[in-house]
Amino acid sequence: MDNAERPLALTIGDPAGIGPDITLLAFQARQSTPVPPFVLIGDPRVLARRARALGLDLKIETVGEASEAPSLFAKALPVLPISVAGDVVAGHPDSAAAAAVQRSIERAVELVRAGTASAVVTNPISKATLIHAGFGFPGHTEFLAKLAGLNASDAVMMLVAPELKVVPVTIHVPLREVMGALNEGRIVKTLLITAHDLARYFGVARPRIAVAGLNPHAGEDGTMGREEIEVIVPAIAAARRQGIDVTGPYSADTLFHAEARKTYDVAVAMYHDQALIPIKTLAFDLGVNVTLGLPFVRTSPDHGTAFALAGTGQASPRSLIEALRLADTMQARAGAKP
Amino acid sequence: MDNAERPLALTIGDPAGIGPDITLLAFQARQSTPVPPFVLIGDPRVLARRARALGLDLKIETVGEASEAPSLFAKALPVLPISVAGDVVAGHPDSAAAAAVQRSIERAVELVRAGTASAVVTNPISKATLIHAGFGFPGHTEFLAKLAGLNASDAVMMLVAPELKVVPVTIHVPLREVMGALNEGRIVKTLLITAHDLARYFGVARPRIAVAGLNPHAGEDGTMGREEIEVIVPAIAAARRQGIDVTGPYSADTLFHAEARKTYDVAVAMYHDQALIPIKTLAFDLGVNVTLGLPFVRTSPDHGTAFALAGTGQASPRSLIEALRLADTMQARAGAKP
Repeated sequence: MDNAERPLALTIGDPAGIGPDITLLAFQARQSTPVPPFVLIGDPRVLARRARALGLDLKIETVGEASEAPSLFAKALPVLPISVAGDVVAGHPDSAAAAAVQRSIERAVELVRAGTASAVVTNPISKATLIHAGFGFPGHTEFLAKLAGLNASDAVMMLVAPELKVVPVTIHVPLREVMGALNEGRIVKTLLITAHDLARYFGVARPRIAVAGLNPHAGEDGTMGREEIEVIVPAIAAARRQGIDVTGPYSADTLFHAEARKTYDVAVAMYHDQALIPIKTLAFDLGVNVTLGLPFVRTSPDHGTAFALAGTGQASPRSLIEALRLADTMQARAGAKP
Repeated sequence: MDNAERPLALTIGDPAGIGPDITLLAFQARQSTPVPPFVLIGDPRVLARRARALGLDLKIETVGEASEAPSLFAKALPVLPISVAGDVVAGHPDSAAAAAVQRSIERAVELVRAGTASAVVTNPISKATLIHAGFGFPGHTEFLAKLAGLNASDAVMMLVAPELKVVPVTIHVPLREVMGALNEGRIVKTLLITAHDLARYFGVARPRIAVAGLNPHAGEDGTMGREEIEVIVPAIAAARRQGIDVTGPYSADTLFHAEARKTYDVAVAMYHDQALIPIKTLAFDLGVNVTLGLPFVRTSPDHGTAFALAGTGQASPRSLIEALRLADTMQARAGAKP
């Protein structure tokens, strides 16, 4: 089947967050801007109630199979139903919803692996909601790796905006643990997965990868930190020996201005804020979170559940629309079904 | 004396770097853009030779007193002479120049403290050149604090661009030492100096200060790092008790986009790259480095010696011109001579 017959599988995320809001708004936006067909995996009653709260006049239709979604998409928002336990109140997270949140992600992966959906797009989840219900993963990325039968370290997070693609080697760890979490093997693996998937999904045959140093001025020849000399330089050398076009480490502060960005296809940063600060400074609304290294395409909007905005009409669907478009483009470029 | 009679005191910086180049280019630029009068403290022969290398047809004139500079500025670049030992070769740093580099800074401070120059503007220096000659300071900021009779921690670095003002609490330390260098007293002192000097020099009577967290998502309630709870929150509370309008800690990645920047006058970051990445991403050429907490105004361009560009004609004077303008504006706003 080509993409025209297979929808994107969109998860509901935390139903008390803005996931339902931005799903409805993204669906509505298809009238004025291209939005690839998707099927929402979640509770149709939650969606209908949120639509009323937002004053949206939309048709929501339950489907039995994902394959029904594309032809339906012009007139109704297609939903593969999963019931949420308990009452869902916008803005008030409730761990009673956790099972449905988790099931929505599992179902999306099943659909894509079975070839009936083309890629996974996830709405934001709340760690707090899920952890209280016994969900043993720090976030989507690790859970998706597990569902794909991989180790968490096989899944690489990349942030994509029109201005910049950037990959953090470490993600959700306290800053004081970053130094211990960095090692040559981990950086090399990140570089190899990044290079491979940039070629497969972004059509950049041999991507130019620029690596940031960890310390101010990339350590200034070891006078302001030794990790560049001891870990990052050897990792870059090892990746180059495997044919990867990678350079650095560069001083992170001068790596992200317009002129510098012309010199590479993707930047690799050492920790969360080093990657997230530049991309959110440049493209707050348009960033998309992509998981590389999985046997299928997965994207998500680059923001959280924003409980305070749920049901208020103030949430913007822009990042979700970008995530849907990017998943569609990546999947089409990779060719046949996964 | 008002500003019209007092020039800015501009140091030569490392004479093998781009300091001479950008000084000449900034002087030449006064024909097409406002450049406040300055007196360069350095070796006139080095300047003349660099002007020839760059093919610039400029008049360079030695003066005996800084006060001669403003009336001369329309027709010649005024220089208070300090001889540099050894040959100065563009692009080839030589520690023989160290004494003159240091003397130029001392002389600039003397002139400003004596009231014959209005403010100090420094060209970039090279730590390597100076350290080899026994200069015992990590950089300008610490040396200027010493010349002013202060402790290094009394001098606060602020980066200023049209889009953003940002202050790093720690600067040139390896990332693994940042956690140990942060404490409540240091953050409070930084906040007080920042608030005081924003009022004095930038005309923001009660500046709104936004403080970044140290960890991803500002620690997410202690689940990704404890420094926010143990150090940053108490420091913010202590500064608020002293009347400072300060809020946070905020997740650093969402603190620097356009909408967020509207909510504060200055951001305070915890370490070098957290402050430098956003400002250099937004304003690579236009950033100015300002030292707060001194008994005089000091600015400098926000870049290094760029030895590879010295004498090539490729160095841009934009940041130096911005530094000269900002020093002039700050000094004028602060009113009477220091």
